[in-house]
Amino acid sequence: MNKIVQCVPNISEGIDLAKIEYITEPLKNKEGFKCISVEPDKDYNRSVITLLGDPEKMIEPLVEFYGRALEKINMNEHKGEHPRMGAVDVCPFIPIADIKVEACIEYAKILAEKVSSTHNIPVFLYALAAQDESRVQLPHIRKGEYEGMKEKLKDSLWKPDYGQAEVHPTFGVTAIGARIPLIAYNIDLSTDNEKTARAIAKSIRQSSGGFQYVQAGPAYLEERKHTQVTMNILDFKKNPIYRVFETVKMECRRYHVEVTGSEVVGLIPMETLMDTIKYYQAVNQIDFDKDMSFNDVVKYAQEYIGLRDFDVLKIIEANL
Amino acid sequence: MNKIVQCVPNISEGIDLAKIEYITEPLKNKEGFKCISVEPDKDYNRSVITLLGDPEKMIEPLVEFYGRALEKINMNEHKGEHPRMGAVDVCPFIPIADIKVEACIEYAKILAEKVSSTHNIPVFLYALAAQDESRVQLPHIRKGEYEGMKEKLKDSLWKPDYGQAEVHPTFGVTAIGARIPLIAYNIDLSTDNEKTARAIAKSIRQSSGGFQYVQAGPAYLEERKHTQVTMNILDFKKNPIYRVFETVKMECRRYHVEVTGSEVVGLIPMETLMDTIKYYQAVNQIDFDKDMSFNDVVKYAQEYIGLRDFDVLKIIEANL
Repeated sequence: MNKIVQCVPNISEGIDLAKIEYITEPLKNKEGFKCISVEPDKDYNRSVITLLGDPEKMIEPLVEFYGRALEKINMNEHKGEHPRMGAVDVCPFIPIADIKVEACIEYAKILAEKVSSTHNIPVFLYALAAQDESRVQLPHIRKGEYEGMKEKLKDSLWKPDYGQAEVHPTFGVTAIGARIPLIAYNIDLSTDNEKTARAIAKSIRQSSGGFQYVQAGPAYLEERKHTQVTMNILDFKKNPIYRVFETVKMECRRYHVEVTGSEVVGLIPMETLMDTIKYYQAVNQIDFDKDMSFNDVVKYAQEYIGLRDFDVLKIIEANL
Repeated sequence: MNKIVQCVPNISEGIDLAKIEYITEPLKNKEGFKCISVEPDKDYNRSVITLLGDPEKMIEPLVEFYGRALEKINMNEHKGEHPRMGAVDVCPFIPIADIKVEACIEYAKILAEKVSSTHNIPVFLYALAAQDESRVQLPHIRKGEYEGMKEKLKDSLWKPDYGQAEVHPTFGVTAIGARIPLIAYNIDLSTDNEKTARAIAKSIRQSSGGFQYVQAGPAYLEERKHTQVTMNILDFKKNPIYRVFETVKMECRRYHVEVTGSEVVGLIPMETLMDTIKYYQAVNQIDFDKDMSFNDVVKYAQEYIGLRDFDVLKIIEANL
């Protein structure tokens, strides 16, 4: 098998579908990697693009994609709910198979160098590619957003890793980096009380003393009329889904609230679900089959953690 | 009510009971505070002394106590299993009632100044009283132990906060500080398999991705013939006992191991147990009585988390 990474550039355009189509065109129908999805969000005015495949083959198309974003997006006119600092706001490489995160960091640097030298865009290396502790967390880099970057870059502490210490007048700045896969996971609660959802979220999230790699908060789903604990699991090996799911269930008991299901946003590595299935099968004294089919993984995930709106193609490996 | 702190000096003598009696004598039968316990440990060759009461009244007796430890303990002759760097190894102030941790930091500084100027002992301020990030963790300060301190103090990074940068030739050095109450709590498992106990401990401890304020590991109890998850809970407000207890139970299920009980080592603030009783009573839809008696607290703690070898006097407030 070739080395496989997931690459998830985010662009600051979520409304004009023709523009999005034009910008992402260099990423489609290429040899060596697939464009799994382009997900525009109108409220955020932002699109999330998911690539999967050989990072080597992604570099040149990504440089072209950056060029088209530069051509079509003027950050001076951008409005949206999501914080942002550039036309391509962020571009992480994530190791999936037969590649280590160290190699992803190298690809991030290669892309950063080319983007900066080709298009004159200042680039920050972030997350595991960060060259300084203060640049590990994307929100630290992005603080002040596009509008505040001009001032921010005057500070020598915020000299970009590549390119000049000057914001591109229409593109802004971009962050390129490497990180381990992040699981966007939400647990449905049988209550519309956001205060309850918040208390439960606080019991599991790192910032309130909970699990080390969990960021969580409450959310109310207008259409479904119930709340969720919405979370990112930054390290699913150390904070497996079943543990978070069962801890939420345990906290729910004091409020006499039920956990009615859960959902994954975006793609999920097979291993995450396998770890969780393994737990429940051990509890139920069922022999765990490490070679089970993708369909079985989906079936058990539905049974054990009530995973809804899920199908085989949401498992990263099923796309390879 | 007067301000109440717990003060827990540790001395490097756990065998010679006459010496221990002589050294701790200034801490007994004093107005304004009580000496709750003196607990010698032979293997550690160390004793833990617990004082409870008005910190103002503790200062002079503590200075005298330091003087007697200096007189009787020669660190050049000390052997024991517990790491140590001085005759009085460590002395923390812990806020219990009507006092903030900031005030405890001030008392730590007052004691540090007096101990250093009266007895010529170098003092490090540690934990919440630390003047530098590198001195927050006691093990960082203590690294190298008594034998390594002479060399360590030559490094300007390890200049003591009070006194000269020279180890006292028989006493060594001491750490004085302030911290919030720490709960020493152990959960009994129905297995003698230490590997299982370790896996369960890893699921809850901060260093492996678990709860932020939990330090945990496995232990095998020779006499009782079973394992425990043994832990310190550094912030019981953020990591309440019930949550840790239920998470351990949940992890146990995959190994088909039972949680057979639990125990508290040393004293415990009332609030810790109340938080836990409140959870189980909410689950069981029992009205929570915040003014319940100490006896009821003990009864419910036995019922809900199987607390064994526990009595009213292990609750800090019952000693006031």
